[in-house]
Amino acid sequence: MRVGVASIGISRFGRRTDVNIFELVEEAVREVWDEGYVSPEDIDYIVFTSTGFTPEFSPAGVYIEHLGLNPIAVHRVEAACASGSAGIYTAYNMVRSGAARNVLVIGLEKMNEFGTPGAVEYLARLGSYFWEVRDYGITFPGYYALFMTRYMHEYGATEEDFCRVAVKNHFYGARNPKAQYQREISLEECMGSRYIARPIKLYDCSPITDGSAAVVISSEDSIRELGVDTPIWIRGIGYSSMPASLTGRADYTSIESARRAAEKAYRAAGIEDPRSDIDVATVHDCFTIAEILAYEDLGFAERGRGVELIREEQTYVGGEVQVNLDGGLKAKGHPVGATGVAMYVEIVKQLRGEAERGRQAVIRRGVGLTHNIGGVGQYAYVSILSR
Amino acid sequence: MRVGVASIGISRFGRRTDVNIFELVEEAVREVWDEGYVSPEDIDYIVFTSTGFTPEFSPAGVYIEHLGLNPIAVHRVEAACASGSAGIYTAYNMVRSGAARNVLVIGLEKMNEFGTPGAVEYLARLGSYFWEVRDYGITFPGYYALFMTRYMHEYGATEEDFCRVAVKNHFYGARNPKAQYQREISLEECMGSRYIARPIKLYDCSPITDGSAAVVISSEDSIRELGVDTPIWIRGIGYSSMPASLTGRADYTSIESARRAAEKAYRAAGIEDPRSDIDVATVHDCFTIAEILAYEDLGFAERGRGVELIREEQTYVGGEVQVNLDGGLKAKGHPVGATGVAMYVEIVKQLRGEAERGRQAVIRRGVGLTHNIGGVGQYAYVSILSR
Repeated sequence: MRVGVASIGISRFGRRTDVNIFELVEEAVREVWDEGYVSPEDIDYIVFTSTGFTPEFSPAGVYIEHLGLNPIAVHRVEAACASGSAGIYTAYNMVRSGAARNVLVIGLEKMNEFGTPGAVEYLARLGSYFWEVRDYGITFPGYYALFMTRYMHEYGATEEDFCRVAVKNHFYGARNPKAQYQREISLEECMGSRYIARPIKLYDCSPITDGSAAVVISSEDSIRELGVDTPIWIRGIGYSSMPASLTGRADYTSIESARRAAEKAYRAAGIEDPRSDIDVATVHDCFTIAEILAYEDLGFAERGRGVELIREEQTYVGGEVQVNLDGGLKAKGHPVGATGVAMYVEIVKQLRGEAERGRQAVIRRGVGLTHNIGGVGQYAYVSILSR
Repeated sequence: MRVGVASIGISRFGRRTDVNIFELVEEAVREVWDEGYVSPEDIDYIVFTSTGFTPEFSPAGVYIEHLGLNPIAVHRVEAACASGSAGIYTAYNMVRSGAARNVLVIGLEKMNEFGTPGAVEYLARLGSYFWEVRDYGITFPGYYALFMTRYMHEYGATEEDFCRVAVKNHFYGARNPKAQYQREISLEECMGSRYIARPIKLYDCSPITDGSAAVVISSEDSIRELGVDTPIWIRGIGYSSMPASLTGRADYTSIESARRAAEKAYRAAGIEDPRSDIDVATVHDCFTIAEILAYEDLGFAERGRGVELIREEQTYVGGEVQVNLDGGLKAKGHPVGATGVAMYVEIVKQLRGEAERGRQAVIRRGVGLTHNIGGVGQYAYVSILSR
């Protein structure tokens, strides 16, 4: 039995001082009901994904109450910045097992209330706090600066190459009305931005974001009954893990768990040549270097040659593999526990052909991909979706 | 295809100043390997259950690294004090869907490092912080004091009746070498203990506990191949939810979500008369009143007549429904996010006939039950297990 996405919804991303957290989660869920395919009565179970930037330490029950969704049962799934994908994987298995026909997955994070220093410390605690964060004082820009330094050393890439990723993602953020940063930037602006953790500059970093996203994962039978116009099917989900601490790693130019997750997803979906079989992808560009590593870990480019894809603009609309046409984490924003759900929303929009003008991918094979990393690879999920 | 429990492990519960959190989680997992049925290589996925009494905000990856279990993928499941059951339900669906043959579920909580006032505030934030905890200053003993007061008013129960639950559970705690409180108490001792939130006294409360527990959930094929001596099968899991805030409730003498969860579990397992069909149960006695409500919500007694079961000692070994023979949350202890997993460990031990002398249930039908509540009912899971 096939499992697919029956409906999607997403809030505006940004520094959302105009809404409280209850109103923020409503924005995404209201879009789901407004699509007109699914009603609350159709939902058998709810999976709530969040790392917990909330005053409640067990937010799922409280937000479900506010949304008026009792007595549908709910639990929270957390896998750092891959929480959303882990939640979708949970829903996928519930539907495949026959336990549910329709599972609503809701991702939520309202990070700006913690302030930037507070959010940066909180995020660091999503890493290996005991071994690395507390003793060495490292935070996430520092982690990814190690990757970027090593990559530049090994392969002769330059800071400009990484800024090209920022330029592309801002270009598409400017075309996405839900994005946190809806303006283009130039290579010079990016290169002129201040260092956060050398060689990572401000414009290499994804922002602190408030946002919510929701998807309904359903059985094929249910999708037919609900009359979904363009069903998008989940062809395979791959996952893996690796140590949260960087200390013992041999390789700083790849996220090994992402490579294994991709292999599993490709095997499940029958993808042989990702570069030609995948039309459109969202990848986990928490920092610009992460998008380059993703190109390579996903097999869109050989090791050390990911930078060529961005230099040649092959990941823009019309390119070989169109990547992060929503602006990515970089410009759309990165509400960490909601990001995996937001990635599904984007790929479903792209495959349905519903993305805004100027950022709609050219769809040839009808196949999309999401690549979602938690921490520095201790959680990794890759999904293949198709029309 | 049937799904069952291939292996179990549990740490000693208590104020574990003798171990750090890494050593604590090892205790349960080492018991799993030491049973000799399952090896790390057999595990396809790990579900980690914890509300997050940890220095890391995304603990799953960090503890898996310490346990040497990479690259098996992992995510965390949280549903307040029902996290363990939500995690097992996730594993159950993974196995039923064919996504995994063996899923390791690990529950962990080391609460005493927060100190009692810190832990009590943390626990309160597992409730409806925004609406009730912050504005009215209520904590969990206060919530359950409302239930107890109403129950006494409606049904003429006395404080002694609730202390009888504490006496029973300490009686069995004294026979459980893993329990936090391994000593019997008298009715007079309980009645003489100080009020925490009138009419709830110190001895009506479960303690602040450090502990870990682990189970392996497996397919029937895998259980046969692993050569498990006494497989215990999951016959059904029911779940439901209700508002986290008490303000709008009409009824304070029942946890409605638990009643619905039990109905679903009974339907799935074909249980018609729980009082005669269930041999042994673990119920969520976070406070003594909660055990009485559980008797009624599970159908072991009519509404308002749960106290008769404890007055007549029908929930002791040899009684009609033998309840919390491990000491319950009350005496064994309540490491909140691990409790649902620990309940499975206990029921598997009982159905295998491996519980210690003096606390082994009389097994007639070979059927056991776990009843696990998160918060004040915003999460509720009931499982039926059988030989």
